[in-house]
Amino acid sequence: MTTPSLINRRVLLASRPEGAPSLENFSFEDLLATDPAEGEVLLKTLYLSLDPYMRGRMSAAKSYAKPVEVGDVMEGGTVAQVLQSRHPGFSRGDIVLSYSGWQSFSISDGSGLRKLDPSLAPVTTALGVLGMPGFTAYSGLLTIGQPKPGETVVVAAASGPVGSLVGQIARIKGARAVGIAGGPDKCAFVHDEFGFDAVVDHRSADFAAEIASACPNGVDIYFENVGGKVWDGVFPLLNDFARIPVCGLIAQYNHAGDSFPGPDRLPGLMRSILSKSLLLRGFIQREFVAQYPDFLRDVSAWIASGEVRYREDIVDGLDNAPAAFIGLLEGRNFGKLIVRIAETEKAGESPVRPAEAWRPKDGHPSRTDPPR
Amino acid sequence: MTTPSLINRRVLLASRPEGAPSLENFSFEDLLATDPAEGEVLLKTLYLSLDPYMRGRMSAAKSYAKPVEVGDVMEGGTVAQVLQSRHPGFSRGDIVLSYSGWQSFSISDGSGLRKLDPSLAPVTTALGVLGMPGFTAYSGLLTIGQPKPGETVVVAAASGPVGSLVGQIARIKGARAVGIAGGPDKCAFVHDEFGFDAVVDHRSADFAAEIASACPNGVDIYFENVGGKVWDGVFPLLNDFARIPVCGLIAQYNHAGDSFPGPDRLPGLMRSILSKSLLLRGFIQREFVAQYPDFLRDVSAWIASGEVRYREDIVDGLDNAPAAFIGLLEGRNFGKLIVRIAETEKAGESPVRPAEAWRPKDGHPSRTDPPR
Repeated sequence: MTTPSLINRRVLLASRPEGAPSLENFSFEDLLATDPAEGEVLLKTLYLSLDPYMRGRMSAAKSYAKPVEVGDVMEGGTVAQVLQSRHPGFSRGDIVLSYSGWQSFSISDGSGLRKLDPSLAPVTTALGVLGMPGFTAYSGLLTIGQPKPGETVVVAAASGPVGSLVGQIARIKGARAVGIAGGPDKCAFVHDEFGFDAVVDHRSADFAAEIASACPNGVDIYFENVGGKVWDGVFPLLNDFARIPVCGLIAQYNHAGDSFPGPDRLPGLMRSILSKSLLLRGFIQREFVAQYPDFLRDVSAWIASGEVRYREDIVDGLDNAPAAFIGLLEGRNFGKLIVRIAETEKAGESPVRPAEAWRPKDGHPSRTDPPR
Repeated sequence: MTTPSLINRRVLLASRPEGAPSLENFSFEDLLATDPAEGEVLLKTLYLSLDPYMRGRMSAAKSYAKPVEVGDVMEGGTVAQVLQSRHPGFSRGDIVLSYSGWQSFSISDGSGLRKLDPSLAPVTTALGVLGMPGFTAYSGLLTIGQPKPGETVVVAAASGPVGSLVGQIARIKGARAVGIAGGPDKCAFVHDEFGFDAVVDHRSADFAAEIASACPNGVDIYFENVGGKVWDGVFPLLNDFARIPVCGLIAQYNHAGDSFPGPDRLPGLMRSILSKSLLLRGFIQREFVAQYPDFLRDVSAWIASGEVRYREDIVDGLDNAPAAFIGLLEGRNFGKLIVRIAETEKAGESPVRPAEAWRPKDGHPSRTDPPR
């Protein structure tokens, strides 16, 4: 069985950003998609997840994962559909969670794929509230933060997929949830729809005073995903024995170079760690993979009961992924940012779109390689 | 029953130091010791422990304990002997661990006293290896650090009571112990007597390179008790999932004011916490008081088996306590620093020394109050 020609459009890392990424750091490439070999499947990307951690992958600096090389496809989680299967575990039409990156088609040997049941939840939730961001919130808050009834939990990016779930789980556990978001619309949503007890706008000129008054009993858990001035506002409010799960530092991802101007805040942090018996713990959710079944069980149940809500911000078209990602780092998304790459194939439809129907856009480099 | 007049010599906090303490920050006062009331005991201080945490008590800044007020007796752990008892739980001659501070006599209602058995171990060990410093090492290393066989554990002040026990317990647990100490004598002792696998002199001009070469597999646990340039040398060596129990920061205790010159090292720390999944946890040993029986059992057994050794640095006379304490902050002690205040009373001896035998020294303020 062979596949008629399919054009695989891919977004490559064209160059490493200095500071904030720009469109010039990305390039587009069009290849003929290849047929799956024995034991492989051909996947069509339906949805691509855009997440702040991808900024780290664009830099050469050592991190918990190796960087994307210049010229390689940008990495990322996806929801994809099996177009053609030569793997005994997958059938044409299956919808899977994958890590196939910023491209419209991919080949997989099945490793790392997880089948999704569209009748249980919208498949996009596998990229958000029921996926990596949701598990980040769940594992970091419950394993490191360990909220107790009556405690105060603070989280920034509270309208996003991690922050919104941190606050909602905190409330489920009996804690007070204080969110930080940018602008009145997000703040209202965090309070009214996600049910946080208090919300502070980080754009407020008087942010430090407002976060202090939103936390009259201090802060027991600060779920750190932004850094920057949010850290500065929350830090003096930390109570003895406060816990700080660190899952992201979006405010400093775009800082060029390794040096930051003084004064040096490290000694003050260390003194507070000592005098308040603080806990800081960086983490990446995959450390806690053993908890994944519990996560799916609990969060699915909370969604079903209405105790947990989520919001998605869906952008159409792979060509718009770079601009959407740049906007994510600036806080321009409102909810879990997802790029819709293609429509789900319905039963009976042709599994392929003829290559002739595709036309490269002006201004993007393109290249066509023969199928392997 | 009344006690003939006893002069209680006390060391007071005369003023709060700006930067390093000096002798002028201390003053001496002589009072007539009072008789114990019903339910109380009169204690004669035998040994006073001098410890770095006392520097924090001299400052007004918020910490885990409230500061000593100017004009009050300096706080501190002591080994004392019961001279007179009106408490059913104590008899004349009993030797107890107390927290009676920098003074030669004290009254206690029995709370916080722990009887010591001089036949089990020298009573001074209750201030060191079998006391607060030892328990700091034991609880912080085992509860927060959790050393595993083959891991590398680094600790500074390795000739002192905390650091020396951290390294020795690390070795008992199968880890590699790397110590940092000041000067060739201390380094040799840490290696030869405490059995550390490697020792680095923090005074070395090439300290960063030497600590790196002493840790060829990186650092899994850095037991932080000093801060400063030791931190700077160890920080780049931290492995993924390294644990950093923070029990002291002696290098910055004497820093005057709250501002430190740049560059700002906080963003770099936070980035490493995130990218390496580091754990930092400040603590004070009394958090872990439930482990105290385990500590006494384990460390006593290790001393008996020869697996743990300890070293004490004993200074004679309360009048020398301020200078000894200043030296402690400069690393001039060699082993657990203890001030011998008085001799243990032997059976049959007069329990009191007549007040007439005592003469105030020139240059120290003195004051005599009537017994209450």
